[in-house]
Amino acid sequence: MTHKTKIKVGIVGATGYTGVELLRILTMHPQTEVCVITSRKDAGVAVTEMFPSLRGFLDDLRFAPPQEADLKQCDVVFFATPHGVAMSMARDLLDAGVKIIDLAADFRLKDEETFSRWYKMKHACPDLLAEAVYGQPETMRQQLKFARIAGMAGCYPTSIELGLLPLMEYERDHPGTFDLQTIIADSKSGISGSGKKADVSLIAAEMTDNFHAYGLKGHRHQPEIIQQLRLLSSSRNLDMTFVPHLLPTIRGIHSTIYVRFKDAGNPLDLQRLYEERFADEYFVDVLPAGSHPETRSVRGSNFLRLAVHRPAGKDLIVVLAVEDNLVKGAAGQAVQTMNIMFGLDEKSGLAWPALIP
Amino acid sequence: MTHKTKIKVGIVGATGYTGVELLRILTMHPQTEVCVITSRKDAGVAVTEMFPSLRGFLDDLRFAPPQEADLKQCDVVFFATPHGVAMSMARDLLDAGVKIIDLAADFRLKDEETFSRWYKMKHACPDLLAEAVYGQPETMRQQLKFARIAGMAGCYPTSIELGLLPLMEYERDHPGTFDLQTIIADSKSGISGSGKKADVSLIAAEMTDNFHAYGLKGHRHQPEIIQQLRLLSSSRNLDMTFVPHLLPTIRGIHSTIYVRFKDAGNPLDLQRLYEERFADEYFVDVLPAGSHPETRSVRGSNFLRLAVHRPAGKDLIVVLAVEDNLVKGAAGQAVQTMNIMFGLDEKSGLAWPALIP
Amino acid sequence: MTHKTKIKVGIVGATGYTGVELLRILTMHPQTEVCVITSRKDAGVAVTEMFPSLRGFLDDLRFAPPQEADLKQCDVVFFATPHGVAMSMARDLLDAGVKIIDLAADFRLKDEETFSRWYKMKHACPDLLAEAVYGQPETMRQQLKFARIAGMAGCYPTSIELGLLPLMEYERDHPGTFDLQTIIADSKSGISGSGKKADVSLIAAEMTDNFHAYGLKGHRHQPEIIQQLRLLSSSRNLDMTFVPHLLPTIRGIHSTIYVRFKDAGNPLDLQRLYEERFADEYFVDVLPAGSHPETRSVRGSNFLRLAVHRPAGKDLIVVLAVEDNLVKGAAGQAVQTMNIMFGLDEKSGLAWPALIP
Amino acid sequence: MTHKTKIKVGIVGATGYTGVELLRILTMHPQTEVCVITSRKDAGVAVTEMFPSLRGFLDDLRFAPPQEADLKQCDVVFFATPHGVAMSMARDLLDAGVKIIDLAADFRLKDEETFSRWYKMKHACPDLLAEAVYGQPETMRQQLKFARIAGMAGCYPTSIELGLLPLMEYERDHPGTFDLQTIIADSKSGISGSGKKADVSLIAAEMTDNFHAYGLKGHRHQPEIIQQLRLLSSSRNLDMTFVPHLLPTIRGIHSTIYVRFKDAGNPLDLQRLYEERFADEYFVDVLPAGSHPETRSVRGSNFLRLAVHRPAGKDLIVVLAVEDNLVKGAAGQAVQTMNIMFGLDEKSGLAWPALIP
Repeated sequence: MTHKTKIKVGIVGATGYTGVELLRILTMHPQTEVCVITSRKDAGVAVTEMFPSLRGFLDDLRFAPPQEADLKQCDVVFFATPHGVAMSMARDLLDAGVKIIDLAADFRLKDEETFSRWYKMKHACPDLLAEAVYGQPETMRQQLKFARIAGMAGCYPTSIELGLLPLMEYERDHPGTFDLQTIIADSKSGISGSGKKADVSLIAAEMTDNFHAYGLKGHRHQPEIIQQLRLLSSSRNLDMTFVPHLLPTIRGIHSTIYVRFKDAGNPLDLQRLYEERFADEYFVDVLPAGSHPETRSVRGSNFLRLAVHRPAGKDLIVVLAVEDNLVKGAAGQAVQTMNIMFGLDEKSGLAWPALIP
Repeated sequence: MTHKTKIKVGIVGATGYTGVELLRILTMHPQTEVCVITSRKDAGVAVTEMFPSLRGFLDDLRFAPPQEADLKQCDVVFFATPHGVAMSMARDLLDAGVKIIDLAADFRLKDEETFSRWYKMKHACPDLLAEAVYGQPETMRQQLKFARIAGMAGCYPTSIELGLLPLMEYERDHPGTFDLQTIIADSKSGISGSGKKADVSLIAAEMTDNFHAYGLKGHRHQPEIIQQLRLLSSSRNLDMTFVPHLLPTIRGIHSTIYVRFKDAGNPLDLQRLYEERFADEYFVDVLPAGSHPETRSVRGSNFLRLAVHRPAGKDLIVVLAVEDNLVKGAAGQAVQTMNIMFGLDEKSGLAWPALIP
Repeated sequence: MTHKTKIKVGIVGATGYTGVELLRILTMHPQTEVCVITSRKDAGVAVTEMFPSLRGFLDDLRFAPPQEADLKQCDVVFFATPHGVAMSMARDLLDAGVKIIDLAADFRLKDEETFSRWYKMKHACPDLLAEAVYGQPETMRQQLKFARIAGMAGCYPTSIELGLLPLMEYERDHPGTFDLQTIIADSKSGISGSGKKADVSLIAAEMTDNFHAYGLKGHRHQPEIIQQLRLLSSSRNLDMTFVPHLLPTIRGIHSTIYVRFKDAGNPLDLQRLYEERFADEYFVDVLPAGSHPETRSVRGSNFLRLAVHRPAGKDLIVVLAVEDNLVKGAAGQAVQTMNIMFGLDEKSGLAWPALIP
Repeated sequence: MTHKTKIKVGIVGATGYTGVELLRILTMHPQTEVCVITSRKDAGVAVTEMFPSLRGFLDDLRFAPPQEADLKQCDVVFFATPHGVAMSMARDLLDAGVKIIDLAADFRLKDEETFSRWYKMKHACPDLLAEAVYGQPETMRQQLKFARIAGMAGCYPTSIELGLLPLMEYERDHPGTFDLQTIIADSKSGISGSGKKADVSLIAAEMTDNFHAYGLKGHRHQPEIIQQLRLLSSSRNLDMTFVPHLLPTIRGIHSTIYVRFKDAGNPLDLQRLYEERFADEYFVDVLPAGSHPETRSVRGSNFLRLAVHRPAGKDLIVVLAVEDNLVKGAAGQAVQTMNIMFGLDEKSGLAWPALIP
C-alpha cells in the first residue's frame, strides 16, 4: 500500500511541546498535509500566533474546537493530549476508517488493571487496547504495518527498552545469561519532558543551575518498561528499578542502564552484539567502543545513540543511551510509526541531523 | 541611636524570591532577629519546608496567618508583598512605633496620580506617601536616618539611577551639559526579576536559550526612574526611554545607558567624576577605565559595579551598570536601608563577596 | 543558468561552528554534494568522528590536508576559515572557474585601507575585492546573480542592516527624515558567535548565568555596518554606535536598534513601511505591531524576525531584530547566496522552521 | 589550643575555582588573615584584577612568585594546585612548623603504589603520606585535631562516602548486611568540577544544553572511594562501580547511590539510622523521608544534604546525596578541617545558607 496523494493528518491537542514538535516535523514531510488541528482552550487561534516559529509554513492553520472539527476526513489522527482523550474518541474514528496514533498512555499498557492503577481511570475500550500495537518501530515493525491503532512508547521507556534490546533478545535465546532481578535505569530528562504547563517548580529560576531526582515512590513509566522488557526477554519475573532525574537542559534524555551478567566470566562480545542487532536500524546508532554519547548529538533529530561498556571487564554492563525526548521519544517516533503504517519510506520526513552546537 | 539588643524583624509575605533573599541575608546579620513572618496561603508551614536551603538556620520559624500575627511587637516590618499591601497596613504599624520598609511600589512614586495610573489602584494613605523616603542609601542617606517609612527603589531603577547619578548631579551644578531628552536605558534582567509564579512564559523550556525585549508599550519602572532623575538633576523636562529585556540567567541586571553631551567637545573627565562621587560608597564600585562589568561579579552580593565609556571620544557616553536584582536591587538594599534607619553600621550583615563561579 | 547535476561543493576549514552548520544545512539541500573538505589540523579525521551528529549523513567524508585537496574540481568553495585565508586562495580558484563564498571578512569591506586597519593585514588581492559582492540577498540579489565572489555579511551586521533597511531606503528617497548621527545598535549575541576555541573566558562555568558588554573600544563589525548603512541611505556622514554584549545562550542574536526622527511629529507608518519592504522576502519576517521577537523563534532556521516600535509615539524608533547567528548570520545566508549565484530556488535546502522549545 | 590572634594563611595556586572559593570563604572567616598567595603564571597581578568579585575585600593582595613567597611565616598553607605540588613542598613547611591542607590528591591515597598508578608520578614523601590524615571531618575528626597534614577528600568521594557512611558503619557492626560487591554510584557534577582551563570541550556552546557520562575506562576518584568505604565498613573486598556524568550547571554534585541488602526482608529502619548517625553533624543534613534533595539547596554552602529511599520496600537502597563541589566538596571542607586542626569552632566562617534561587 503506497499513497499517491498526500496523507491527510489530524492532530488533537497540539498546543504542548509534543504537538508543536509534530507540526515542525510534518512541515518537513513531503507526503503529508495537516488538515485539522483541534484545541478546546485555544479554538480560533492561528497556529502561528501561538508558535511564531511556524510563520512561513502553516500560516493558514487555526485551532478548531474539538466538537466541530471534522477529524473523520483524515487518514490518520495523532493525539498529543493528556491521558484519557484518545481512548474516548478512538472507536468513532476507527469506524470511519481513520488510523490512530496516540502519544499519550491510553494504548501503552496491555493490562487493563495496570492501566487503571497507574492512571487512575477505567479504560474506555479494552477491546481496542487488545488490538493496539506498541508504537516502537525497532521492536514492532511487522505488527505496525497492519495496525489501526498505535500506542506510542513513552520517552524514558524508548531509551531504556532500545538500550537493553540486544541484551533482552540474547536472554530470550540464552536464558540465564543476565541477572534479571537487579537491572537499574538511572535516567535524566530535560525539562521539556515535564510539559508546557504553569507550574512553579518548572520555572527557569527554579530549574536552571539545579538537578534532582524525583518519582522514587513510583513512576508511570516503570510498569511500561517492565512490560516490554519481559516481552522482549520472554522472562516473566524480570524486575527493574527506575530512577528519573530532572536535567537543566531543554531537550534530551540520557539513560545510564546497569545490568549484570550472572557469570562474571561470560565472554560475550557486547559491542558486536549491539552493532549487529542495530545494523539495519537507521535511527539507532551504536557508537564505537569506549564512547560516551552526548544528549546534544541527537538534539532535534530522530536518532537514539548508544554505547555499551563493561567497566574493568567485570560482571556489570553499563549501557549509555541518549535520545531527544520530543523526537525519538515522542513526535519523531510517531511519524516514523505513521510511515510504517502507511507503507512509506520509514525515513520520510525524518532524515535530518541534530542541531549542534 | 544604637541598638543594644537585637532588632526585632517582621516580614509580611516572604514566600517569593525577594522574601527568601531577605531571610538569607538576615541569617547573616548579627544584630537582627526574625520574630514574625506571615503568609496567607502558606500559614502554618515551616519556613524550612518551603526553603530547605534555610535548614540549620531558621528551623523554628513558621508562616503565621496575617490576621493573627503580632507584627506590632517588631521594631521593623519588611513588606515583600504584591503592590497595595503595605499601604493598607502602614498606619497601624506606625502608630505602634514600628518602622516600615516596603519592597513593593506603594511608597516609591511621590505623585499620587502617577501611582494610580500605573498601578491601577487608589493610594490608601497619601499623607504617609508624602512622608515616606525613597529607599536608596546613596542618594537619600540623610533622610533615611530619620525616616519611619522607606519605599525601596525598584530593581531596574537602582541600576539606572545610580549608573547616572554622577552625571545627573553634574547637570544640576552645570545645567545644559547633557542632552536630557535623549537618554536611553537598554536593560537586561535575569528571570528571578519576574518573580516566583506559575506562568508558562517563565518555565525553563521557554526561557532557557532564549532572549527578548518586553514592555515596550510602557513599564512601571519608567515613571519611577524619571521621577528620580529629574530630582537628581533638578531638571523638570528630562525624559528617558527604557527598554527592558529578559535574560536567561537566574539573577543579575545589566543596564547599558546612553547619554549625550550637548557639546561633543566637552572635556569632562568621566572616570574621575565617577570615582570621586562614589569614593565613600562601599557598595558602589567604579571599575577601572575600559572595563566591562559582568553580572556574575555581583551575584549574591550587595555591590553595584559600574564602568563609564565614551566610545571614540565622541559625544555619546555609555554607562555599564550591573547589580544582583535580588540583593542591591531589593533585599540587600532594604537591609542596608534598615541599618541606616537604626543607626547601625551600614555594612552590617552585608559585607560578603559575590559567589563566583 | 540552472544546474541539472548536483553542485559540487568544497569547504575550507569546516571544524568550527560555522563549518559544521554549513555541513548540517547541505545534508538537507537536494541539489548539492559535498566533495572536498579541508583542515590543516585535523587532516585524515572522519567528519563524523569530530561531529557525531552527522553520523548517518556524511559517513564517508574525511578532512583532507589543504595542500592535497583538489578544490578545483568543485563548482563552489565555501571558506569557513579565519580572516586572510580566502583572499590567499581566491585567484587560483577563480581561474579554474570555481565560485567563492567567503564567510570570513576578506571580501566584506570595500575600502582596502579600512580592511588593513581593522584586520591588521594587507589585502592580498585588491582587484578581487573590488569585484566581490557583499553576501546579503535582500540588498544585493541582482549583483549576486552574476557574482564570482561573495563576501558574506557578518552576523551582527546582518541583524542591524536588515533591521534598518526600510528606514535607510526611506532616507535615501526622503533625505533628512532621520537623525543619522545618533543611531545606536545595542546587540546581544549567543556564545557560539565567539567561535569554537579553547579560551578560558568562554567556558561554561564563566559564561553560564553571566552577561556583559564587550568591545567598547571598537569592534570590527562597526566599519562594515557603517559602510552598508551609508550605501543604503546614500548618506556619506551617517554614524552609528555599536555596543555588543555576550548572552548566555548557544545561538541567537538580538539587536535593539535606536533611530530618531528629525521631526518628532513625523507621521510615517512604520509598520506598513516594514511590511511592504519585506513582503517578498521569505526569510525576513515582520511581526505584527506590538510584538517582541524571541531569539528562539529563529533557532536553527534561516529567518530574521523583526518588530518596529515607536514608544509613546515620540521621536525615537526602536527596532527589535532576531536571527540565528550561525544560520541567517552565517551558514544559512551563505547557502541562500549560493542558491542565487547558481540560479536555484532561493529557498532550496533552507525551508525548515526553528527548533522550539 | 585556641588561637588568640588571627591565623596566618598562605595559599599556593589560588587562580582556579577551588582557590577563589577559598578566598571567598576566608573573607568571611573572623579568625583568619590571608598573608601570602602565590602563582607562577600570574605573579604580580592583583587578586582583585583576576577576581573583580573580591574588590572591597582583598584589595591589597597580589599573587607572589612561588620562589620569593615567604610561606614559612604562615600558620597554615592551603594547596589549591595540580597534583604533585604539595608533596614537593611539604617537608620544608612542616619543618618550619606550618600545617598543610592539600586540596589536590597528594595525600589522599594511602597506598603509594596506587597513587603512582593513578597519578602517573612517584610519591615524593611516603613517610608524610603515612602521617597525613584524610580531610573529612565527619569520619576523621579526632585524627584531624592533631594532624600536621590533611589530604582533603575529593569532591565526588565526599558525596559518596558520606552518603554511604551510616550503611558502612552498620556493616562494620553487622557484617553481611549488605551486598558489598554490587554498589553503584551514578554521580553527576557541575562544570566547575572540571576546573578553570582553556579546553574546547568545556566551553559554553559545547556544555550548555548537553549531558553525558565520562571516565568509564576508570576515574581517579574510584580508588579513593573504595579505600575509604573499605576502611569504614572494615571490609577488604568491598567493590564499587563509579559512573560520573557532566551536568550543565556551574556548581553541584548529585550522587545517586545504589546498595543492596543481602536479605530482601531486612527490616532495618534506614531513615532512623541516617538521622541518628548525623544528629550531631551540623553540615550533614538528612532530609525527611521521601525527599529528593536538589543541588541548588546547597549552592555556595558547606552543607551536604541526603535522602535515603527503599523503592517499593524491596532489597535495593537508593541514597541521594547533594553537595556544592567547590564548598563541601573542596574549599569549605578544607576550612572546616582547618577549624578542627586549630581548635576553633568547626562552623567558624562557614555558617551561611545556600544562595537560592
